[in-house]
Amino acid sequence: MPLVRITLARDTSAEHRRAIADGVHQALVETAGVPPDDRFQSVHEVPASDLHWSASYLGLERTGAIVFVQIFLNAGRTVAVKKALYGRIAERLAATGLRKEDVLVNLVEVPRENWSFGGGLMSYPPQQ
Amino acid sequence: MPLVRITLARDTSAEHRRAIADGVHQALVETAGVPPDDRFQSVHEVPASDLHWSASYLGLERTGAIVFVQIFLNAGRTVAVKKALYGRIAERLAATGLRKEDVLVNLVEVPRENWSFGGGLMSYPPQQ
Amino acid sequence: MPLVRITLARDTSAEHRRAIADGVHQALVETAGVPPDDRFQSVHEVPASDLHWSASYLGLERTGAIVFVQIFLNAGRTVAVKKALYGRIAERLAATGLRKEDVLVNLVEVPRENWSFGGGLMSYPPQQ
Repeated sequence: MPLVRITLARDTSAEHRRAIADGVHQALVETAGVPPDDRFQSVHEVPASDLHWSASYLGLERTGAIVFVQIFLNAGRTVAVKKALYGRIAERLAATGLRKEDVLVNLVEVPRENWSFGGGLMSYPPQQ
Repeated sequence: MPLVRITLARDTSAEHRRAIADGVHQALVETAGVPPDDRFQSVHEVPASDLHWSASYLGLERTGAIVFVQIFLNAGRTVAVKKALYGRIAERLAATGLRKEDVLVNLVEVPRENWSFGGGLMSYPPQQ
Repeated sequence: MPLVRITLARDTSAEHRRAIADGVHQALVETAGVPPDDRFQSVHEVPASDLHWSASYLGLERTGAIVFVQIFLNAGRTVAVKKALYGRIAERLAATGLRKEDVLVNLVEVPRENWSFGGGLMSYPPQQ
């Protein structure tokens, strides 16, 4: 159920972008109870001049390699799960060569009834 | 008031993309009480290698023609309205040549005060 | 903490797009209590035929220069703050040459625990 939107500056390789997307998905599976085959992601490149980021906010040094990871998912994860998810995404993306400081994550939670994964059907209808 | 973001793999025709956007809007008008002239949408193409989707999640067979339809709208639609919306979007997009299994919809609801449709004004201020 | 996504039709200059992004950030700082160094934004150009907008909704005349400004931010701003933010964004963007009618703003609010601004850490953990 997560829908993931990844945004970064242009001119990375397709392989690098795939590794980032793979890492985000693995982290969701490993920490947030997402089924391995529940993967829906898009990666959006923009010119470097169209990506704006703080080099110092909250005391972290960031670079132009920064990646914005926005995850739309069902509400209900605990604070502990969210912490684990942030940590694991950063670890997985560090394994692709990114600096952990360059990994921004934002969660947007929705109720379960807010998804249709195809066929025109509500994927998770409320229990009767 | 909906703001609609449509994401799909590159190399479709402008006409196909327009037909998809038209179909999503028609479905919103027909099932969710959206005024016909309340239409704000963007369509985002990404390279096929930057779009990740499950070919089998929830038992539905998907293909690379998959379209992610994300709709930001006011809270308050009932489960019945949401079900009708998902069904109608899939029907309308099937009429453009898409398979219904390749239509993913995600709703993100916001309060009415969270919109300005121009002029620097809050479009739907709370009732006094 | 805001994550800002700006969408507009292709073929503007990089300078114009930067001025828009600057203006949105200044408005957030001036009206919504956002720290000056808390800036994370991406600008997304799409072909004009992939941007759909109403020329008349709510009685405002819009043009193809329309800009969609979507702001993901922490919940808790008052209606008064949101009104001030809409007004200031429109003013700031008018200073870049846009018409105020062509400035659409949508806020999507999340709880504070839903952010990691790098390092794999929850940036605003709940108070113990």
